Amino acid sequence: MIIVPEKEIAGLMTREAAFDAVEAVFAAMSKGSAYNFPVIREAIGHADALYGFKSGFDRESLALGLKSGGFWPGNDAKGLTNHQSTIFLFDADTGQCRALVGGNLLTALRTAAASSVSIKHLARADAKVLGMIGAGHQSTFQMRAALEQRDFEKVIGWNYHPDMLSRLSDLADELGIPFEAVDLERMGQEADVIISITSAFAPSLMDAHISHGTHIACMGTDTKGKQEVETALLGRAKVFTDEIAQSVSIGEAQHAIAAGLLTADQITEIGSVINGDSPGRTSADDITLFDGTGVGLQDLAVASTVVDLAVAQGVAIEIEF
Amino acid sequence: MIIVPEKEIAGLMTREAAFDAVEAVFAAMSKGSAYNFPVIREAIGHADALYGFKSGFDRESLALGLKSGGFWPGNDAKGLTNHQSTIFLFDADTGQCRALVGGNLLTALRTAAASSVSIKHLARADAKVLGMIGAGHQSTFQMRAALEQRDFEKVIGWNYHPDMLSRLSDLADELGIPFEAVDLERMGQEADVIISITSAFAPSLMDAHISHGTHIACMGTDTKGKQEVETALLGRAKVFTDEIAQSVSIGEAQHAIAAGLLTADQITEIGSVINGDSPGRTSADDITLFDGTGVGLQDLAVASTVVDLAVAQGVAIEIEF
Repeated sequence: MIIVPEKEIAGLMTREAAFDAVEAVFAAMSKGSAYNFPVIREAIGHADALYGFKSGFDRESLALGLKSGGFWPGNDAKGLTNHQSTIFLFDADTGQCRALVGGNLLTALRTAAASSVSIKHLARADAKVLGMIGAGHQSTFQMRAALEQRDFEKVIGWNYHPDMLSRLSDLADELGIPFEAVDLERMGQEADVIISITSAFAPSLMDAHISHGTHIACMGTDTKGKQEVETALLGRAKVFTDEIAQSVSIGEAQHAIAAGLLTADQITEIGSVINGDSPGRTSADDITLFDGTGVGLQDLAVASTVVDLAVAQGVAIEIEF
Repeated sequence: MIIVPEKEIAGLMTREAAFDAVEAVFAAMSKGSAYNFPVIREAIGHADALYGFKSGFDRESLALGLKSGGFWPGNDAKGLTNHQSTIFLFDADTGQCRALVGGNLLTALRTAAASSVSIKHLARADAKVLGMIGAGHQSTFQMRAALEQRDFEKVIGWNYHPDMLSRLSDLADELGIPFEAVDLERMGQEADVIISITSAFAPSLMDAHISHGTHIACMGTDTKGKQEVETALLGRAKVFTDEIAQSVSIGEAQHAIAAGLLTADQITEIGSVINGDSPGRTSADDITLFDGTGVGLQDLAVASTVVDLAVAQGVAIEIEF
């Protein structure tokens, strides 16, 4: 069995490799050769923790297994990340556990890769201004990955707590791109691509904020009740997602579905755009919205890549199991 | 993180320790302080494999995690066990993966411990004859564990393929107890305790076979459609189980429930007998039937015990994760 500890991931995984792995597995999902199993998510009644699993199987790459972990709100005070996860890969030919991989950094990288894949396939080619809503832990991963997809000339940002925007402005300084804190009116008017990565239960970005052919990646909603953008915006936009079943139940689309502004068959899997089976954006004026809910197959895809890299670079720990 | 490889389990785990762990977790389940999460079980469309997880959390012992693996029918030809599983324990205070434990031998031991717990709490104290139905891989684990619960003087056995009974007679020789192959009529007439451990989809033991106050442990049915004993027998017996939700859906009771011969509220959790909240057997003439469906908490309980033993005996592999 191969073990790749959390502390080795940063030295192994690249944004490019995460992008390729996530794009490939989205394509496989849409072809029907990869699928996610039902998600388990339990409030365990101890330490206020949410614990569960995301899992699946990709018949093309033979990635089989799960990510397990969850949210432990008391971890910060112990010097640990609140979100903790570990990825387990199984041998699809024998059922034996093949690898155990730290999942904390990979979760941020695969989530950033998903919005990045949506930008590649759905944003206007001439996009110049990137808008960031949210300035939490994952926002810098999102911003770094997005900037590689278009020739952005500027980043604008908004956060519920404005003082946290220094996280994004510091990164912009480091990357040599101008940054400006804006209100949501200017965000909607100026940004060609908007990434929303919050854990909000009420919308920030409203329908009236968006005027032109913006691409919006909603990356924060992964639970019943969470919401990042006004429901009406999903009625007006072309809506895409990683997995339709999750999008309509726990994703950003849940509210538009409940309000009757959107039906499941009006939502397009991003994989079918990648595969060329769906057109994606057809005009510069289209408002495209990607509902990134996060699926187990993304975790398996990036973990499989990391295992290959760890073996190739001699960093993998091998245990006779 | 602690790793206990499959090859170390035999040298660490005892039947007594498995019994104590399983009895304690059944008791915790009945008190409501331990519960199993929904089971995932998927035919993955590769290698004819069934893959999935059983998982749960025990707030008393703080055992949290899952067993993952499944059934790979082509493994035999490769010199591997068809059933493959691995147990993962998580730290309930932080969500970090705490231990990885080989689950193949532990699965046999925890299943044998479950029927053994049912014999302790439900069989007549003067039981003399143990009946075994089934002579597959798990049958010897069942027989060894059962013989420790009463002063049995004889073992009788039946199997669909009679030549396989040599597995049980060899074990009886080793343990110095007489063994006889019998038909199912004699099995029902003579055995005071019957353990059925098959993977049958049609009943072997019929209602008419059972005349006196027998205790029957049905350990083989864990899937929709499987069946070991005639439905009418569950209408007549006092029915006990590890978990009622599994008993009525994928356990031996599924058929009696469907036929209207039994209702869920007529089934008693074995934990409530252990806790003294339910009487269990009340007369020597009672026919008691334990529907052992197998729950994730059993796996977590025995794996937790193994980790403690491995650490105490210096066998655990520790990895900085």
